[in-house]
Amino acid sequence: MNKNAEIIAVGSELLLGQICNTNAQFLSKELAQLGINVYFHTVVGDNADRLKHAIEIAKKRSNLIIFTGGLGPTKDDLTKETIASILGKKLVMDEEALFSIKEYFQKTKRVMTENNKKQALVLEGSHVLPNDYGMAPGMVVEEAGYTYMLLPGPPKELQPMFLSYGKLSLASKVDVSEHIISRVLRFFGIGESQLETEIESLIDSQTNPTIAPLAGDHEVTLRITAKHQSIDKANELLNNTEKDILSIVGEFHYGYNDDTIFSVLFQKLKQLNVSISSAESLTGGMFGEEITQFSGASSIFDGAVVCYTNEVKEKVLGVSSNVLSEYGAVSEQCASSLANGIKSLMNTDIGISFTGVAGPSDLDGKPVGTVFIGMSLPDGKTIVKQLNIPGTREGIRIRTVKYGCFYLLKELMHRNA
Amino acid sequence: MNKNAEIIAVGSELLLGQICNTNAQFLSKELAQLGINVYFHTVVGDNADRLKHAIEIAKKRSNLIIFTGGLGPTKDDLTKETIASILGKKLVMDEEALFSIKEYFQKTKRVMTENNKKQALVLEGSHVLPNDYGMAPGMVVEEAGYTYMLLPGPPKELQPMFLSYGKLSLASKVDVSEHIISRVLRFFGIGESQLETEIESLIDSQTNPTIAPLAGDHEVTLRITAKHQSIDKANELLNNTEKDILSIVGEFHYGYNDDTIFSVLFQKLKQLNVSISSAESLTGGMFGEEITQFSGASSIFDGAVVCYTNEVKEKVLGVSSNVLSEYGAVSEQCASSLANGIKSLMNTDIGISFTGVAGPSDLDGKPVGTVFIGMSLPDGKTIVKQLNIPGTREGIRIRTVKYGCFYLLKELMHRNA
Repeated sequence: MNKNAEIIAVGSELLLGQICNTNAQFLSKELAQLGINVYFHTVVGDNADRLKHAIEIAKKRSNLIIFTGGLGPTKDDLTKETIASILGKKLVMDEEALFSIKEYFQKTKRVMTENNKKQALVLEGSHVLPNDYGMAPGMVVEEAGYTYMLLPGPPKELQPMFLSYGKLSLASKVDVSEHIISRVLRFFGIGESQLETEIESLIDSQTNPTIAPLAGDHEVTLRITAKHQSIDKANELLNNTEKDILSIVGEFHYGYNDDTIFSVLFQKLKQLNVSISSAESLTGGMFGEEITQFSGASSIFDGAVVCYTNEVKEKVLGVSSNVLSEYGAVSEQCASSLANGIKSLMNTDIGISFTGVAGPSDLDGKPVGTVFIGMSLPDGKTIVKQLNIPGTREGIRIRTVKYGCFYLLKELMHRNA
Repeated sequence: MNKNAEIIAVGSELLLGQICNTNAQFLSKELAQLGINVYFHTVVGDNADRLKHAIEIAKKRSNLIIFTGGLGPTKDDLTKETIASILGKKLVMDEEALFSIKEYFQKTKRVMTENNKKQALVLEGSHVLPNDYGMAPGMVVEEAGYTYMLLPGPPKELQPMFLSYGKLSLASKVDVSEHIISRVLRFFGIGESQLETEIESLIDSQTNPTIAPLAGDHEVTLRITAKHQSIDKANELLNNTEKDILSIVGEFHYGYNDDTIFSVLFQKLKQLNVSISSAESLTGGMFGEEITQFSGASSIFDGAVVCYTNEVKEKVLGVSSNVLSEYGAVSEQCASSLANGIKSLMNTDIGISFTGVAGPSDLDGKPVGTVFIGMSLPDGKTIVKQLNIPGTREGIRIRTVKYGCFYLLKELMHRNA
C-alpha cells in the first residue's frame, strides 16, 4: 500500500532546545530510501493531552506514524500509555524484553529498580523490535489501516533498532514499483564549491542519476541517485555517472557511503599487512583513538606517544635538542624526527607524526593552523607535508589527523600486499 | 500577554533528512529564556497547501507562530506568500531591503538576477527584521491576537537576526511578570532510573522548582526550573532544591549546565597546579585527546603512551613480563604498573592508566567490558578501580575514559591548591 509518513518526537527536552531532533533526520533519510513520503515532523512535550492531540491530527494526514522517545522507565515517559488509550489496547508484559532488561542489570552489576519493569510493557498484539543497545524495546502496531511504530529516544538505541528490525518491517508493507538507489562518493582535500565548479557541466546535464553535493565534517560528498524499474539498470546508471565524475576529480576521492578516511586507511594497512605507530603533539592522541575504534586494530597498530611537551619529544622520542632549539617543535625537521623516532621506538613499518599550532594563540612565532605531518615509510623514505589549516582549535586538530590519513593513504594506494 | 509558541520549519530538505532542524533547537532555547512556552515544533515541506494546513492547526493551539525558511528567491520559497493569503494581506516592496540586496551583489561582484527582488517583498504592515548576513529580511506581523514571526532558513542568517532584532521585538510583547530560571545538575556513574528512584519523593512533591531527569551520552542530568516574579527568589528556590538533591545523590554529582567531565577535571588540575600523563591501552589515546581539547592544556598535561601491544607496555612503560604472563594485560596489577610507569616516564604528579577489553571478542579469558583504571597519585598512593561496562566497543571506550576522569576528580575533590 501507499505510505505517507509523519514522525512524532515526544520529549520536553526537544521543546526546551536541550537536544536537536536528529532522530527525525535519520528516519527521514531512511524512509526516503524506502520510497516512503514524509510530509510532516512534529515535536510534542511529555504531556498526554498534547500528545493525544498530535496523534489525532497525524491520523488525518498520514497512515504511517512513527514515534520517537517516551519509552523509558520514568513517569514522564508516556508514549505507549497514550497510544494504548487512543487505540483501546492493553499494555502487556513482554517476557523476552523483561528478560533482557534483567540481564542488562546483572551484567552491569547495578540494582534493578521496580520502575524498570515498565519498559518491558508493550502494546497488545504488537510486533516487538528488540533493543540491542538499551532496555526499552520498540514495537509496531497495525490498526484500522494505520501503522504505528514506536522507537526509543536515544539515537544510539533508535538507529540500530531501526536498521536491524524496523526497516525490514516497513519494507514488507511498501509497494515498490520503482527502485531508487543512492551511492555516496566521498572526497577529501577539496572544498564543496570547488568540487561543484569542476563537475558543473555534469550536474547541469544530469537528471537520472541526480548528483547532489553536500559538505560536512571537513569533507565533501556527492550523492548520486538513480531511479529505474530494474535494480541492475539503476546500478549501471550509477556506475557510468561515477566514472564520469572520477575522471575529473578522482584524485580527491577516497571512499563510498559509510566509509570514513579512518576506516579506509585501516583496511588498506590490514590488506598490506603493515604496522603503524604515531607521535602526536597537537592532536593529543586523536590518531591513535581513531585507528583503534576498529576491532582487530592491534594487528596493525602498536601504539603512540603523545608528546605534548618538548621534554617528551626529546626524552621519549629522541628529537635532538638541536632541532628543537634551531627550528622549534613546529617544523619540518621536528615532524620528520618524530616520525622516525616513533617508528623506531615502537618497531613498526610506518611512523606518522603530527605537530603544529592548534591555537588559540600563535606558538614560537608560527601562526595558528601551521601544521607539519611526518611519515616514515616502510622503504626508509621520510616525507613531511606542511599545511595551513583555518578554523577553530578543534577543527584544526581533526583536519590535521584526517589530512595525515589522506596523505598516507595516497602513499599506500598503489602498493599491493 | 501570555505567549504560547509553535515553531514551523518550512523546507522539503528537512523532510528528506538532508539537514537537521537545528533552528528549532536554537529558537526553543532562546524562547525558554524569555519565559515563552514552546508546545510544538512542526516541519512541513515546500508545499502551499500543507503549509496552510499547518498554520491553521497552529492557530488553534498557539498565539506566537515562528516560521523558519522559505524566504529565498526561488519558486519553492513560499512562506510569505502563503501567510499573505491566509491573512488577506498584500506583499509590498521594502526599499531598504531591496537596497541591501543590491549592495550585497555589488560587494560580492555577482550579477543580480531578477528573482532576487522577490526577497525584498514583505507583508504589508509588518515590522521588518534586517538580515545582516544574507539577503532575505525577516518580519513580524500582529493580527487578531496572533504574532507571526518569519525568519530565514540558513542558521548563519537566522541566529544573528533573532539575537539582534527578533528577540527584542518578542521581549516587548511578553509579560515578564514571572521569571523562569533553569539550572542543569550533571551526574556520572548512576543510571537514570536509579537516580529517579533515589530522589522520587523530591520529584513527586516538587512543583516549583520542577525537577526533570534526562539521560544522554553516558551520563544523567537533572534540570531544575523555578518560576518567580523575583529573579533572586527564583535562584533561592533553585539553591534549596539543589541542596536537597545533593544531600541524597551528591556523590555522583560533578558539574553544572555546559560542564563536561573533561572540562571539570581540567579546571581542577589547573587549580591544583598538578601535572598528569596517561598510559592508554583500550582507549587508544582518547584521554589525551579529550584533555588537550582545552587551550592551555600543556600547563597540566605532559603526554601519553598508547600501549596497544604488550611489547609497548613492557618496553616503553616498564610493566614486568612477570605481571603480563601471570595476570595478563587486563588486570589490576598491570593497570597499577602502567599508572606508575607513565608517571615516572613523563615525570608528572599523576599517572592514569586504562586497560581492558573493548570487544567485540573476549581477551585472555576476560569478558568484553572488563576494565581496570589505575591512578598513581601525587602522594605516592596507587589506586586501581575495576569496572564491567556494557555496550558497544565505542561506548565501552568512551565510558572508560569518563569513569577515569570521574574517579580522579573524586580523589582530587577535597584537595586545595
